[in-house]
Amino acid sequence: MLLRRLMSTSTKPTVLRLGQVAYAQEAWAELEKIANVIVNDSPNREQFLQDLKGKYSNVDYITRTFPSVTQTGLFDAELVSHLPESVKAVCHNGAGYDQVDPHALLTKNIQLSNVPELVDNATADTHVFLLLGALRNFNAGHEALLKGEWAQVRKAAAGTPVANDPEGKTVGIVGLGAIGRNILSKLKPFGFKKFVYHNRNRLPEDQENGAEYVSLDELLATSDIISINIPLNKHTTHFFNEEKFSKMKQGVVVVNTARGGVIDETAFIKYLKSGHIRSAGLDVMQNEPDVNLELVNLPNVLALPHMGTHSFETIKKMEEFVVENVKSLIETGKVISLVPEQKAHDF
Amino acid sequence: MLLRRLMSTSTKPTVLRLGQVAYAQEAWAELEKIANVIVNDSPNREQFLQDLKGKYSNVDYITRTFPSVTQTGLFDAELVSHLPESVKAVCHNGAGYDQVDPHALLTKNIQLSNVPELVDNATADTHVFLLLGALRNFNAGHEALLKGEWAQVRKAAAGTPVANDPEGKTVGIVGLGAIGRNILSKLKPFGFKKFVYHNRNRLPEDQENGAEYVSLDELLATSDIISINIPLNKHTTHFFNEEKFSKMKQGVVVVNTARGGVIDETAFIKYLKSGHIRSAGLDVMQNEPDVNLELVNLPNVLALPHMGTHSFETIKKMEEFVVENVKSLIETGKVISLVPEQKAHDF
Repeated sequence: MLLRRLMSTSTKPTVLRLGQVAYAQEAWAELEKIANVIVNDSPNREQFLQDLKGKYSNVDYITRTFPSVTQTGLFDAELVSHLPESVKAVCHNGAGYDQVDPHALLTKNIQLSNVPELVDNATADTHVFLLLGALRNFNAGHEALLKGEWAQVRKAAAGTPVANDPEGKTVGIVGLGAIGRNILSKLKPFGFKKFVYHNRNRLPEDQENGAEYVSLDELLATSDIISINIPLNKHTTHFFNEEKFSKMKQGVVVVNTARGGVIDETAFIKYLKSGHIRSAGLDVMQNEPDVNLELVNLPNVLALPHMGTHSFETIKKMEEFVVENVKSLIETGKVISLVPEQKAHDF
Repeated sequence: MLLRRLMSTSTKPTVLRLGQVAYAQEAWAELEKIANVIVNDSPNREQFLQDLKGKYSNVDYITRTFPSVTQTGLFDAELVSHLPESVKAVCHNGAGYDQVDPHALLTKNIQLSNVPELVDNATADTHVFLLLGALRNFNAGHEALLKGEWAQVRKAAAGTPVANDPEGKTVGIVGLGAIGRNILSKLKPFGFKKFVYHNRNRLPEDQENGAEYVSLDELLATSDIISINIPLNKHTTHFFNEEKFSKMKQGVVVVNTARGGVIDETAFIKYLKSGHIRSAGLDVMQNEPDVNLELVNLPNVLALPHMGTHSFETIKKMEEFVVENVKSLIETGKVISLVPEQKAHDF
């Protein structure tokens, strides 16, 4: 019996799981019927790189979560160079995969999958929340209320500076991808004057949903609210810098639920303090979780600790989809959701 | 010249203005061409009641704001009994007019107007913000972030308890009036499973916008999110009490942008602390601005200091509409927006 199990085990592919499973225990239990699942217990990058040569040297597939970066560090060229030859795919649990270098993986013929679409609704809901809050100065009122200032000042809205309604305002969406389009459809009933967007290329009209394609400079110069939805990569790091901020309208509202790294926070804080940027809604910051506390505590910043997909339904679906990618690998040799950077490659 | 001005002045109606004008200076300047405008400087209710017999004894119309209650107290039966016989109308700047007794005014044949419709968008926007925030536990994450707890716990979303997406959830709207319908239309794209509502009477189908009419008990028992949009009056004071809370689903989310007085806060705090009510979004509290700081500081409460109409565009339009009501009185003898309680009366 023991022998049979050992023999059958040895014919199954091996999956190395990095990071915890919150709600998809059933899906993983199902997967264990067709795969050996090893849970990473290497406490840090140094040990992890050693273990890749030792106990993980026969791994076929790796699944990873965003927080598992604290155990392994980034999946950059260095880490990829240590991956054993047996590894055929890395299945990342998240829409953004800036922690993983898809090009380095290609050099070793390793597929990379992410979790698109499933995250769109929860992320867009977070974006709309932050946009409404920043537009209306709700953060300043909320903080004054909690500190008991209302009873002292005895003014309307606890003396919070008056802000604005959607009426008459132009929303500029930088990155009208799936999440941007989801945000657009949710903002439509709020009565904004106009939606404009900028992508590298204009979208087919049926995907624009009434938004007008403009140059980046026009978007920056004409938008009352700027909605940031671009992935973080080497081209977009600090994309929103002093030069871009200086081109924005006086009193603009900036919302970012993409990645903190697309904003140069030093310049950002300067423009928030001067009021050139009137307010901001942020779900993402640089150096999470060691974020700049000055930034998130500015009275004109409404900030959340990366909660875009932090909901039971979305976390469960994302975890289950990672397992689906592994199952697809076992059955077909291919992930379901190959990242765009790898789509031209012949695996 | 002086004589002519005095004579012409004496033929104009007199308007007593209670409370400040933030943005409608132009509209008031226009009004001053056809009316004498007196700005109230009575510092408290006692002096105000005396002044009604003295320097305000020839006033034709009174305009008032929500914060002016700190100078005059409520426009209740006692205050109304002191109004001079010359007063023909009170023009209130706000949608809710719980500070004014429309029935007491009727006994003296005095019209009462409010500001409907213009407030709907800004109030509904606030409601959607609070609903999304309460549903997703954004308040708890926000507070943890600002205190620097993320770097310590180093967990996803700073360790904020996982909450829920709109998917699969039923929203129960108590009071599907103009604001409730505005909220409904804005929530539609978010992917909720179902909208139900309860009014005293079912609405015509074209006003229901797909929401299902149910009894109050069914709404309380089946809703995952309860959206409160009923006016405060003697029938609705503490309408949401221990009995109603006990009928709600375990883990319900409650949102109130109507008036604090429709909720019994003692029972509310008990149900929030036990988790029977998982979270709440509140723009209104009892005893504003001397609000219960325990309530607004609960980690599962996202609260604002009555900011529903606190926006430049909405405040300006509301102030201008009060002036429009006065102009209508001067020109036709009638306000534009008589409150429902007075509609059967023949002025």
